[in-house]
Amino acid sequence: MMVMTARIVSWMVMSSDDLRYLLEPRSVAIVGASSDIRKVGGAISRNALSGSFKGRIYLVNPRRRTILGRRVYPDLTSIPGDLDLVEIVVPAEAVPDVMVQAAEKDVKAAIIVSAGFAEVGNVELQDKVRSIARSRGIRVLGPNCFGVINTMIDLDLTFSFTRALKGNIAFISQSGAMCCGTLDYAYSQGIGFSKFVNLGNKCDIDEADILEYLESDTQTRAIALYLEGVKDGRRFMEAAEEASKHKPIIAMKAGLTEAGARAALSHTASLAGRREIIEAALRQSGVVKVEDVEDLIGGAVALAGQPTPRGVRVGIATNAGGLGVTVADWCQSLGLEVPVLSEEVRRRIGGVLPRFASSGNPVDMTGDAGYAQYKAVSQILLECGEVDLLIAVFTSQGLVTSDGPAHGIVEAASNTRKPVIALLMGGRSVEQGRRILAQGGIPVYGFPEKAARAASVLVQRGILRPQRPLGVES
Amino acid sequence: MMVMTARIVSWMVMSSDDLRYLLEPRSVAIVGASSDIRKVGGAISRNALSGSFKGRIYLVNPRRRTILGRRVYPDLTSIPGDLDLVEIVVPAEAVPDVMVQAAEKDVKAAIIVSAGFAEVGNVELQDKVRSIARSRGIRVLGPNCFGVINTMIDLDLTFSFTRALKGNIAFISQSGAMCCGTLDYAYSQGIGFSKFVNLGNKCDIDEADILEYLESDTQTRAIALYLEGVKDGRRFMEAAEEASKHKPIIAMKAGLTEAGARAALSHTASLAGRREIIEAALRQSGVVKVEDVEDLIGGAVALAGQPTPRGVRVGIATNAGGLGVTVADWCQSLGLEVPVLSEEVRRRIGGVLPRFASSGNPVDMTGDAGYAQYKAVSQILLECGEVDLLIAVFTSQGLVTSDGPAHGIVEAASNTRKPVIALLMGGRSVEQGRRILAQGGIPVYGFPEKAARAASVLVQRGILRPQRPLGVES
Repeated sequence: MMVMTARIVSWMVMSSDDLRYLLEPRSVAIVGASSDIRKVGGAISRNALSGSFKGRIYLVNPRRRTILGRRVYPDLTSIPGDLDLVEIVVPAEAVPDVMVQAAEKDVKAAIIVSAGFAEVGNVELQDKVRSIARSRGIRVLGPNCFGVINTMIDLDLTFSFTRALKGNIAFISQSGAMCCGTLDYAYSQGIGFSKFVNLGNKCDIDEADILEYLESDTQTRAIALYLEGVKDGRRFMEAAEEASKHKPIIAMKAGLTEAGARAALSHTASLAGRREIIEAALRQSGVVKVEDVEDLIGGAVALAGQPTPRGVRVGIATNAGGLGVTVADWCQSLGLEVPVLSEEVRRRIGGVLPRFASSGNPVDMTGDAGYAQYKAVSQILLECGEVDLLIAVFTSQGLVTSDGPAHGIVEAASNTRKPVIALLMGGRSVEQGRRILAQGGIPVYGFPEKAARAASVLVQRGILRPQRPLGVES
Repeated sequence: MMVMTARIVSWMVMSSDDLRYLLEPRSVAIVGASSDIRKVGGAISRNALSGSFKGRIYLVNPRRRTILGRRVYPDLTSIPGDLDLVEIVVPAEAVPDVMVQAAEKDVKAAIIVSAGFAEVGNVELQDKVRSIARSRGIRVLGPNCFGVINTMIDLDLTFSFTRALKGNIAFISQSGAMCCGTLDYAYSQGIGFSKFVNLGNKCDIDEADILEYLESDTQTRAIALYLEGVKDGRRFMEAAEEASKHKPIIAMKAGLTEAGARAALSHTASLAGRREIIEAALRQSGVVKVEDVEDLIGGAVALAGQPTPRGVRVGIATNAGGLGVTVADWCQSLGLEVPVLSEEVRRRIGGVLPRFASSGNPVDMTGDAGYAQYKAVSQILLECGEVDLLIAVFTSQGLVTSDGPAHGIVEAASNTRKPVIALLMGGRSVEQGRRILAQGGIPVYGFPEKAARAASVLVQRGILRPQRPLGVES
């Protein structure tokens, strides 16, 4: 109870505005800076300096005079001017001293990258650091964390070797390795982020704080959460419920099975909790749940790029019958509807397709469908009032390149407030189409299951936070 | 009953050896050859001629003298020498005449690429072609098909714009578009094929015939089937049961839901059948079932490259805790076991890892694990007798590149008869590791769910066709 009380008091005196010092600092000092980019302190220095961040970055290292061509300060107190944020990359035992210096400089927030705290049983040292922070009003991210990225101000305070592209997805992860893998995968797919945060040991700042901050972050349009355990379930649920009123939240909770829970316990000492309880809690908080990191990223892309559907009826337009069948199978398996279209709509679709095409749903436009057919059929489906979202499907069959269909889908989507997602199956032959669709804001997936799951994520968001009653057509 | 009798008689006189003329011809004529590679006949001519096929290829077109620098014959009968196979790419109405010519030349097999038969309601024309074929002893693939590829003899008789890499997976598909998408995706992933067959309308040759042929094809180590409907269920089951005794078969049956079945009916006029019956029939025939084309390809790669496990116990070795937790979650969700390791094994693992690593299962080797740790831990897990297969997991965390871990995994796998699969999450930073693993014969996946599903495919094969009783350790 003592701990709970201390926590409650701290929340009372520290508003979520404090996190602006963490995520939008005007000045940052890196303590433990290095010129060896193979070291964590070196990689962080390189990343921080290589962007076009307009604020001030100070490097601190008592044993060096210059690093990467920049002046180096021996300690925090010798830095001229104010400091919003300090990032600490020194051995664990030296962290309390740096925190005391930070307090003297009136620093508002700290990122403790250094490992060797609670994650290896050194709870006492972590408590010591937290108590310094609390008594001096410093918010702390970590310890044992990967850092933060804010692409809006071009500031990367992580040791990632892969840059984050600018985007509108905020990614929050409890696992540092998940951050590295996600950044690297996302870069290869052209997926960008607004904010990127690794929580580490959560001695102070946790998911709930970040959610409160992101609620009003204009750059963020969807929030993706990788969770292993949540320390204060009630506060998390409250923060998630409030944030999800403003923007979609998608979460993956690892450790849901007995084997996974055992692994999570040894990984981040997280108590995983019962699957049903966690799933109900997330749902109640308005959070869409997925079960794999691929779906976490893919679902976030859909949520950030597309509006919320007002119902569960999916229209499918395809140039490949087999892919249409499989998407329909997956949609129905996931609880979506693939309605039979009215005679009137079928007649309209028939009017823009060759005689032997199938005007059912899926609409099989046959192998030579190009720009005109994709645009016309997509438009008819989106306007007809019989479907709530569209999945457009293409695979190269030698005669039509992927650019025309992609342009057709993008143009049809620009005239609607219904969500549109695309499935382009293949390798090199669909690369250009993928690029055109992504630039046009249409989420693209490579296989039926992935596209259907993204559609399901959008529909779940619509059910959890309906814009209007589901099933009622505008 | 008349039709059935005719079919039975035809099977009696035509053995599966006939398919050697289709898949291993010594001489091929392409009727409807063209020099315009944007046309189907042109793309087929280019593909057929551009490989290093040692047999003879004749181009036939009454209106041309040379195509792609080669002599052109006006008709089949003017070709000197014997003809095993004829590929027909002329308008549908002209196909019967070509078949009569083919019979005069004593051709053994025909691929009818031309569309405009039963798939558009022209059943009569298709029956006419079949009756010519049956009376003259010509086996027919198609009509309305994409052709065949045999990489062993470097013969590509499809109009695919993407080449097939040499490999040991035989891919059979009812859908032509699925063939195009699969070839293009597989090429980008470095996945190769032994034989590649699109069945089209199946007026004669169907899945069962191809399975009978593949049973003794030395190049093929796993068979992947994309099915919408099966015309003769009993014969398919018999062929599958027999073939699956010799090599693993993995199948995806599209049209399993009401929405999917409706789409399949309009796509290939296939009656989809009840989900439970189909699944039971596949299982009874020893066929592993998957539900997405990504899993069909991914599962085939695992089956072709790895031995069958003798039990359901999975060992997981990872440098990323979160990925280990998620793989464990997925394994358990799919019915696999992630057993707690004995004290003895944990002690051995602890001996090769830093103090703070976790020697449980998943074994979390921590972020700086490299070649030595991956090799040693993999070896201990594979040798210990407490797991039946290994999933090795890596994501780049800045300090260790992917090549060392990949080499470690390949070397450990080379000393065991237990299956090993890998999960490498990321983009560019894990490319080299992926390449090393693939060259070393280890199937590689990009996300937890995919790796766990591949493991599950191997385990299902083990259950359907056990090498020894499951759960009994060698």
